Amino acid sequence: MDRHCLMIPGPTPVPVRAALAGAAPMINHRGPEFGALLREVTEGLQRILMTRNTVLLFPAAGTGGMEAVAANLVAPGERVLVAVAGEFGARFAEIMRVAGADVRTLDFEWGTAVEPAAVARALEEDPSIGMVVVTHNETSTGVTMDLAGIRRAIPRDDVLLVADAISSVGAIELRPDEWGVDVVVGASQKGLMTPPGLALVALSPRAWEKAGRTRCRSVYWDFAAARRFLEQPTPQTPYTPAVSLLYALRESLRMLQAEGLENVFRRHAVLARAVRAGVRALGLGTLAGEDCASSTVTAVVLPDGLEGKKLLGLLRQKYGVVLAGGQGRLAGRIFRVGHVGRVNWQDVVVTLAALEMACRDLGLEVEHGRAVAAAEEVLGAEG
Amino acid sequence: MDRHCLMIPGPTPVPVRAALAGAAPMINHRGPEFGALLREVTEGLQRILMTRNTVLLFPAAGTGGMEAVAANLVAPGERVLVAVAGEFGARFAEIMRVAGADVRTLDFEWGTAVEPAAVARALEEDPSIGMVVVTHNETSTGVTMDLAGIRRAIPRDDVLLVADAISSVGAIELRPDEWGVDVVVGASQKGLMTPPGLALVALSPRAWEKAGRTRCRSVYWDFAAARRFLEQPTPQTPYTPAVSLLYALRESLRMLQAEGLENVFRRHAVLARAVRAGVRALGLGTLAGEDCASSTVTAVVLPDGLEGKKLLGLLRQKYGVVLAGGQGRLAGRIFRVGHVGRVNWQDVVVTLAALEMACRDLGLEVEHGRAVAAAEEVLGAEG
Repeated sequence: MDRHCLMIPGPTPVPVRAALAGAAPMINHRGPEFGALLREVTEGLQRILMTRNTVLLFPAAGTGGMEAVAANLVAPGERVLVAVAGEFGARFAEIMRVAGADVRTLDFEWGTAVEPAAVARALEEDPSIGMVVVTHNETSTGVTMDLAGIRRAIPRDDVLLVADAISSVGAIELRPDEWGVDVVVGASQKGLMTPPGLALVALSPRAWEKAGRTRCRSVYWDFAAARRFLEQPTPQTPYTPAVSLLYALRESLRMLQAEGLENVFRRHAVLARAVRAGVRALGLGTLAGEDCASSTVTAVVLPDGLEGKKLLGLLRQKYGVVLAGGQGRLAGRIFRVGHVGRVNWQDVVVTLAALEMACRDLGLEVEHGRAVAAAEEVLGAEG
Repeated sequence: MDRHCLMIPGPTPVPVRAALAGAAPMINHRGPEFGALLREVTEGLQRILMTRNTVLLFPAAGTGGMEAVAANLVAPGERVLVAVAGEFGARFAEIMRVAGADVRTLDFEWGTAVEPAAVARALEEDPSIGMVVVTHNETSTGVTMDLAGIRRAIPRDDVLLVADAISSVGAIELRPDEWGVDVVVGASQKGLMTPPGLALVALSPRAWEKAGRTRCRSVYWDFAAARRFLEQPTPQTPYTPAVSLLYALRESLRMLQAEGLENVFRRHAVLARAVRAGVRALGLGTLAGEDCASSTVTAVVLPDGLEGKKLLGLLRQKYGVVLAGGQGRLAGRIFRVGHVGRVNWQDVVVTLAALEMACRDLGLEVEHGRAVAAAEEVLGAEG
């Protein structure tokens, strides 16, 4: 298991440096060492998120960050537009609904991107919508949405734009301040190369105003309380924070900082292109078009006669490469290759070589080395 | 910092074995290795909790487990009785209130225990109360409540008894099935010797019935969904679990199992008695009476002229011993010594010796070695 090549879209492999940092001795979460830790991590996240907005951290999965948005920013009965182009868009809609919002979904074919013009039309038709929710990077389909374009298409300034950026933070360009994204929800276990268990939320001044006008229905997710504790002279959290995960995140943030954010984004984009080239050389198709294909995950359409479960089982057991299946309505129709976080060209080559061999094992006509060759061409051209 | 003696009531020091286990390579949270991990951990927790009830785990602080109870088991407007004898009782009341419950608090002097007879009277006076919430071990005051006695005092079988056992799980005897405690909320970072970030909740069949009749207002805390995923042939969770914390918890559970639960409880009780004896030998008083004093934390009353902040700062900076201050209305009136989790007699001796020296530094009349001697007497008698 130690040599398994984990190529799922998250949780992603944690760099040894970060994993070991997480094993450091426990500290008092009300003391000065913790204050320094929390300050460094939240400031590091501001740089990664290219935002001046305060970044709040919660001991939670990313789904918790989504729920926090619903609890703080939407009063029961308020109308919210959720763009749904995959499983995670559907999840955000469900979270909003369960929290009491009056949810309108704007549905797109899974594997395509949210169309800014469609968002504009929906808002023009219904002036009571005060919030638009978009999944920045839809992990279930391997599609990245054009957040900047969506904001430009929104006809009113007072409409809050909320982005689920759980699978894009630290891997795909995201400029909330420049683009006018009011709320960013992220998590530790994908581009940030940290074990799962930390959700993050960053709010624009406009979003804070809305929070101030909305009664928060949760003690756990209370944004105002989290900010109040964070802004004390010795930064704290309202309740016990996930100290060891913050240690690990601090180390991963230092690594991302050292690599340089532009380089990180470029690395992900190049590796994704190499994966897509390799997959196509195998004669397989990707679910997403090239114009909106994600840099963190590639959804590959299963050809007739190739059973996803069998393929993934073989890849895991015989070749030590772990990929992900399809979710929701895409279960059994696709498989997914994650290439996010602590990933490099070696992982891509190993994955494609394993795919070649496994596909041949299952009777597909596949030429040895062809996918790897296609990937090498992309990698070579990009230096 | 590496030699700091962390004697706060949580988060507690993590055994090196468990901390390093948390650094193991990441795995697919939908795969068989994770299923085996989750199964071992939940079964191990059942043994620690001495319960046949399913134990659900959430990526969250303990406070999240409290909020989960409110979201799943209490419909808006339902009347709940919360016994408040300290900061954490007050927190549970606040969580219930914010979630929409009609909360009645039953207040006790901070430093005393919840009286079963008072609970009985409150329920007799108000037959509309369907739930009683009690903090099993009130960390802010160092008092352990008599849960079995409280259950016996509850006049109706259909009243659910909810225990916040966050600071008692794995350290103080707790027999929910035998005592009739319907809901147990726990967390990883105290008696379970694991980093913070995992909340656990165990529900009796009666509590599950109530959950079935109550609309859950949360996707994140949904008990039924968590159980459904857990009971699949390959156990899973509805969203990404805190994998590294589960690794660490598995290791800590193995250590507790090897020591033997009765021995674990006894160790905590003996060390607590040694701490109290030492504190008294210093001429200081404890907030809690001997009949209800906690095995995990001792609240020490600050004598006139001794400033808590000064004492704790000196202990930390000069002697490397980290204690906790008072919370809420007890801030500045007490300090607290935690003795929970991976704690042994050496920690107690070091803490008491540091206290002796720091108190002398601050001008108190303290005889060198006196507190340590009193502790040794307790430790010696207990073998």
